[in-house]
Amino acid sequence: MDFVNIAKNAKESSLKIAGLDVDIKNKALNALANALEEHKSEIFAANKADLENALPFVEEGEISKSTFNRLKLDENKMRDMVQGVRDITNLEDPIGKILLKRELDKDLILEKVSCPIGVLGIIFEARPDVISQISSLAIKSSNAVILKGGKESVNTNKKIMEIIHNALSDVEKFPDNVIQQVFSHDDISQMLKCDEYINLIIPRGGNKLVKYIKENTNIPVLGHASGICHIFVDKSAYIDDAIKITVDAKTQYPSACNAVETLLIHKDFDKKDELLAALQLEEIKLEMEPESWDIEYGDKILSVKIVDNTEKAIEHINTYGSGHTDCIITNDLANAEKFMNEVDSAGVYLNASTRFADGFRYGFGAEVGISTNKTHARGPVGLEGLTIYKYKLYGKGQIVDDYAKGIKKFNHRDL
Amino acid sequence: MDFVNIAKNAKESSLKIAGLDVDIKNKALNALANALEEHKSEIFAANKADLENALPFVEEGEISKSTFNRLKLDENKMRDMVQGVRDITNLEDPIGKILLKRELDKDLILEKVSCPIGVLGIIFEARPDVISQISSLAIKSSNAVILKGGKESVNTNKKIMEIIHNALSDVEKFPDNVIQQVFSHDDISQMLKCDEYINLIIPRGGNKLVKYIKENTNIPVLGHASGICHIFVDKSAYIDDAIKITVDAKTQYPSACNAVETLLIHKDFDKKDELLAALQLEEIKLEMEPESWDIEYGDKILSVKIVDNTEKAIEHINTYGSGHTDCIITNDLANAEKFMNEVDSAGVYLNASTRFADGFRYGFGAEVGISTNKTHARGPVGLEGLTIYKYKLYGKGQIVDDYAKGIKKFNHRDL
Repeated sequence: MDFVNIAKNAKESSLKIAGLDVDIKNKALNALANALEEHKSEIFAANKADLENALPFVEEGEISKSTFNRLKLDENKMRDMVQGVRDITNLEDPIGKILLKRELDKDLILEKVSCPIGVLGIIFEARPDVISQISSLAIKSSNAVILKGGKESVNTNKKIMEIIHNALSDVEKFPDNVIQQVFSHDDISQMLKCDEYINLIIPRGGNKLVKYIKENTNIPVLGHASGICHIFVDKSAYIDDAIKITVDAKTQYPSACNAVETLLIHKDFDKKDELLAALQLEEIKLEMEPESWDIEYGDKILSVKIVDNTEKAIEHINTYGSGHTDCIITNDLANAEKFMNEVDSAGVYLNASTRFADGFRYGFGAEVGISTNKTHARGPVGLEGLTIYKYKLYGKGQIVDDYAKGIKKFNHRDL
Repeated sequence: MDFVNIAKNAKESSLKIAGLDVDIKNKALNALANALEEHKSEIFAANKADLENALPFVEEGEISKSTFNRLKLDENKMRDMVQGVRDITNLEDPIGKILLKRELDKDLILEKVSCPIGVLGIIFEARPDVISQISSLAIKSSNAVILKGGKESVNTNKKIMEIIHNALSDVEKFPDNVIQQVFSHDDISQMLKCDEYINLIIPRGGNKLVKYIKENTNIPVLGHASGICHIFVDKSAYIDDAIKITVDAKTQYPSACNAVETLLIHKDFDKKDELLAALQLEEIKLEMEPESWDIEYGDKILSVKIVDNTEKAIEHINTYGSGHTDCIITNDLANAEKFMNEVDSAGVYLNASTRFADGFRYGFGAEVGISTNKTHARGPVGLEGLTIYKYKLYGKGQIVDDYAKGIKKFNHRDL
């Protein structure tokens, strides 16, 4: 089927799932979790084929070791995938929430009600576990979804999709085509052009992929192209906090987007040498004169800069940062507030590791991704980020002319 | 100055105004209102020059009568402009609101706080009153703004801008370059490309302008390209409601985006002929076989279609509508709920005129415009639509590794 028809089907399906009872959505999620569990040996077999196909490219260096690891599904990842679906089942329905209820006048009641966005386009790289995660989030938030995965995991993706498709078609009253997948590279450019049917694109992958997508579509994109996170060690910082937090933010998972890339140190912080020595002891390579100040190392490497004061630290971050997550380590609360108000990032932290920037750690239960957007949703995005709202107005024959002429007056009373 | 420098200045300015005390913002708004009042004769003189320049084009038919009327400022419009600024002064500060406060663990407190978007790009046609309205909304919401007006109102725009500039530069602690204006046509294409510095584009104008903008930028756009609003008269509708509401929705202000364009009538509504006769009595021209079902007449013309049932009405609206505002007239509450849940529009109304779709009527106090977007903000958009949020995390040395290893546990307790 050509892409436009797939997108049309998704649109149609999105209108059907929009008002679906949460019990049916949860039945679908349960069916999905059970099916993944039941058919896991088939998934492992498909995944084995992908791994075998990838192996020569890893040896040739065309596929990185970390991509290969992300591609690989094992019993642990499979358990997490299934548990992830079950966790979403237990979350509150994000649809149909009354966000505002206001009497505009007698018998003229306005309600602002949460509803789904419509059709999501998901473009992801070699992480087949994204399929079940995003599919479950889409189902729970009543959105239809079109997934396009990386070519490295095509066998795994097809198998998971087949299992999801079979599981969902057995669920009574659950509409067709809520979850669809496309496979050809050409589908990406078609998806990016398809603003008639697709309402939001969520890229899950590296810097290059996300940048390419952001530059090549008029459809809103939710995500982040890069994570250049900073820690600023103020002159009043406790040395223990400075060491502990910087080590955690750099080494706990160096390739994460919320890992720290640049350490700014106040010129009058008197334990500077002790801090740098401690970082080197943890095998962190320090770059005192990096090629540029916006490198995302994704590795145990850290750019270091000495700054004159808090203002200069803020200025540096607002110039070179990516608006992801930035931290100040200080005992001076005024400096902390200044930093947190003036740094223009999704997350601004006081005395805590940047690695906390995560939907699960924030208590959202599930995460679509982390957004550095300045509209719609920012920071770790949970189910709420997949919703918008509509206004319902309940009248009894009211017309605007009566208010324009002053015959009637609004009272605007919140209920 | 070239556009990129203007945009850079706006970005810098946006960082300064982001944390500005609401008292200073209100002082700026007061200064702005007073200055407009004081210098109104200069504004009228500039406006007169624009009108004189436009007149020949009106005679030649190149500028429409309604554009000419929108261009014209009189005492009434001037009073509304000034009052509009004062009204915004009285609105609550939308910045710094705590939207969520959660203990992630002991001494680890997460706050979700509203903050400005950053830099707004406003492209508007021949309505010079937009300048003071958008400038005030930007100031109150701590955003910087770059305005590009239509060439027809260039003298008026320049004069208003000069007055605003002088008024704001006298306000102590108010940053420079919060409000800037550009004048050349080339600035539009530059603005649309400037995603490095501009965070949101708001077009205020006709269908063609908005479509052009949406298709030519990667920056998020807030607005609506068209308003194809529908009224569906169900078989159980009261004839009086049907007449009154349709007449209001079509004639109270025919060129408004929330005016009705298409009337759908249930085939078994037995007062069909009475309804159509009543509409014709009000000089509404009925199109029983329109050229297409997505015409925005902006005039006292109405497409009419007989439909089999509520499902068909919903299907028609979701196919041909623009997702703006659609109404059902019925006494059948089940049909009403079905219609309001399944019609995918910003406003879904029961027994009330589509003309109520408006920020002032909803009680928002001021309006940026009406959005048919499915992300960020939908329907009439007030100050809240010019905000986003950031996450502040207050810790005391916490690191993620302790939670990953199970040494510590999150409690996720809302405060």
